[in-house]
Amino acid sequence: MRATLMYGAGDVRIEDVPDPQLLQPTDAVVRVTRSCICGSDLWPYKTKKPGEQGARMGHEFIGVIEDVGAEVTTLRPGDVVVAPFVYSDGTCDFCHEGLHTSCRSGGFWGTPDVDGGQGEAVRVPQADGTLVALPVGEDDALMASLLTLSDVLPTGHHAAVNARVTPGGTVAVIGDGAVGLCGVLAAKRLGAERIIILGRHADRTAIAEQFGATDVVSERGDEAVARVKELTGGDGAHSVLECVGLDEAFTTAVGLARPGGAIGRVGVPQYPALPSSGLAFLKNITIAGGIAPARAYIEELLPEVLDGTLQPGTVFDSTIGLEAVPDGYRSMEERESIKVLIDF
Amino acid sequence: MRATLMYGAGDVRIEDVPDPQLLQPTDAVVRVTRSCICGSDLWPYKTKKPGEQGARMGHEFIGVIEDVGAEVTTLRPGDVVVAPFVYSDGTCDFCHEGLHTSCRSGGFWGTPDVDGGQGEAVRVPQADGTLVALPVGEDDALMASLLTLSDVLPTGHHAAVNARVTPGGTVAVIGDGAVGLCGVLAAKRLGAERIIILGRHADRTAIAEQFGATDVVSERGDEAVARVKELTGGDGAHSVLECVGLDEAFTTAVGLARPGGAIGRVGVPQYPALPSSGLAFLKNITIAGGIAPARAYIEELLPEVLDGTLQPGTVFDSTIGLEAVPDGYRSMEERESIKVLIDF
Repeated sequence: MRATLMYGAGDVRIEDVPDPQLLQPTDAVVRVTRSCICGSDLWPYKTKKPGEQGARMGHEFIGVIEDVGAEVTTLRPGDVVVAPFVYSDGTCDFCHEGLHTSCRSGGFWGTPDVDGGQGEAVRVPQADGTLVALPVGEDDALMASLLTLSDVLPTGHHAAVNARVTPGGTVAVIGDGAVGLCGVLAAKRLGAERIIILGRHADRTAIAEQFGATDVVSERGDEAVARVKELTGGDGAHSVLECVGLDEAFTTAVGLARPGGAIGRVGVPQYPALPSSGLAFLKNITIAGGIAPARAYIEELLPEVLDGTLQPGTVFDSTIGLEAVPDGYRSMEERESIKVLIDF
Repeated sequence: MRATLMYGAGDVRIEDVPDPQLLQPTDAVVRVTRSCICGSDLWPYKTKKPGEQGARMGHEFIGVIEDVGAEVTTLRPGDVVVAPFVYSDGTCDFCHEGLHTSCRSGGFWGTPDVDGGQGEAVRVPQADGTLVALPVGEDDALMASLLTLSDVLPTGHHAAVNARVTPGGTVAVIGDGAVGLCGVLAAKRLGAERIIILGRHADRTAIAEQFGATDVVSERGDEAVARVKELTGGDGAHSVLECVGLDEAFTTAVGLARPGGAIGRVGVPQYPALPSSGLAFLKNITIAGGIAPARAYIEELLPEVLDGTLQPGTVFDSTIGLEAVPDGYRSMEERESIKVLIDF
């Protein structure tokens, strides 16, 4: 089959790889029908050292089950399924606590023996625990929105939950990528009254407003902090969603959080240490979040995607075929596209 | 009157200063009867640059009201009162939310026009909001325990609350100073089943065990992490109380927190950035806490101090007079004393 491999920064190739097969009785093999490129894929795209071995890419996909192992009980060939960006057994204590990203039998896509999502098929370990069947056909009109259940919608939701968004609260969202935009949507869904998006790209802030943002702040750094304070009576936002992962973004997050407020961080940290430690201490800011247990949130979010209440698929502003994926990376890296959908 | 001034690292002097007077109608003047030296006083004692102007020291005290301003309604001369380590009006939105450390009219002791607690008397701004009357005589046998209500007991409690200590939970406490020991007491009070203290001084760990610690870990750093994981079935502690404020202590805290767990940090941070950002992200560790709103907790903790359920006064292992305070600093710095009480 054909799949995406990254050999180094800027070097993405589509190549022939072995077809996946059932290795464990708890596996399924899924033929991928939709996949996408993630903002987090851009970190290695910018920095990965060149190597002879390519890394399999992609961790968000929807597909159709082709085969299941003997111990898979809840899924069967033909089912349309969505996969969260980490696989998990659904039975261990961490899964029961809703922390599927720490599952005792879990792991990441694109690791040895486990395929990446940006390819024609995937061996899915722990299929019963990992996959969620979708009550739609494989080419349903909702596919773009349903695909966000793999990662960006639950990740935005995780940011909002960890930033303790409450009905009537004031929220600031740092990052106008797909996750930040989904954070706006999640904050709105949780009842926030005021949602301030920090962004300066008109196409992105327009989607943010469509998703529920009430204010757009185009300033950055200290100026953004001053502007958000001005908008919030001088005190800052109760909840800050940090959807970038850069040092400066986190510094800004601490600056614009109201004393006693919370930062939900979901931007994969590109810094070794969290800055503004002293200011966060003085203001008693709670710093929560991390890698989002997407699987824990899919059942909660799915009905609202199916009935059209949530339309997160808007974050996809470009659709390509698999062979065009290298150009899709370039396009996202150069911020021509917010998020690229791969239609197989 | 006589009061403590710090002129630089290692240079603490007792000198004559002006007697405090009412400056605002919301003030009270308190004659100090008990005070103490705080672990946080040791940071400037180690690092303060020499200066011609001495800094007034002390932020924990009990005393008797000598005079009140015209707008003070709840207190009168003769009342025995305890002061939290930050003054606050008790009426603003932050105070109503329990975040008295962010009070809109609040501030710190030992700042211009506001006396420090390590002196014979103090002008107390916002007296109605700040002071809590104690139903005891000024030389009551409970004085040592009552004095911990100024800072170390509520600070330990703040660490436990922010580390989300719950009945049956597993707790690790980093720091065997007075705050760490009070953290053990607070965790026990909140129902923790297992409380692991990291410490290597027998006198301190003995108090920790008396306060409810079930295990003592004398290792540090990675070895401490390994040992705590061994004690907790491999996963680490649900709740970690970081009562030191050093980089290495925070790194250890992240290491020994269970995935999905929480760190309550109350050690005044001596680092500009919180280390182990990536590991905390991967484990979804919540980092909460900061400067403790002691005033918010005094009413909750006071009854249990008065009836002897809590005996935090044990952390004072030395009692001195005011003129001996410079030696008290030396004694705490050299870890001869855990915490020094000043009896006037």
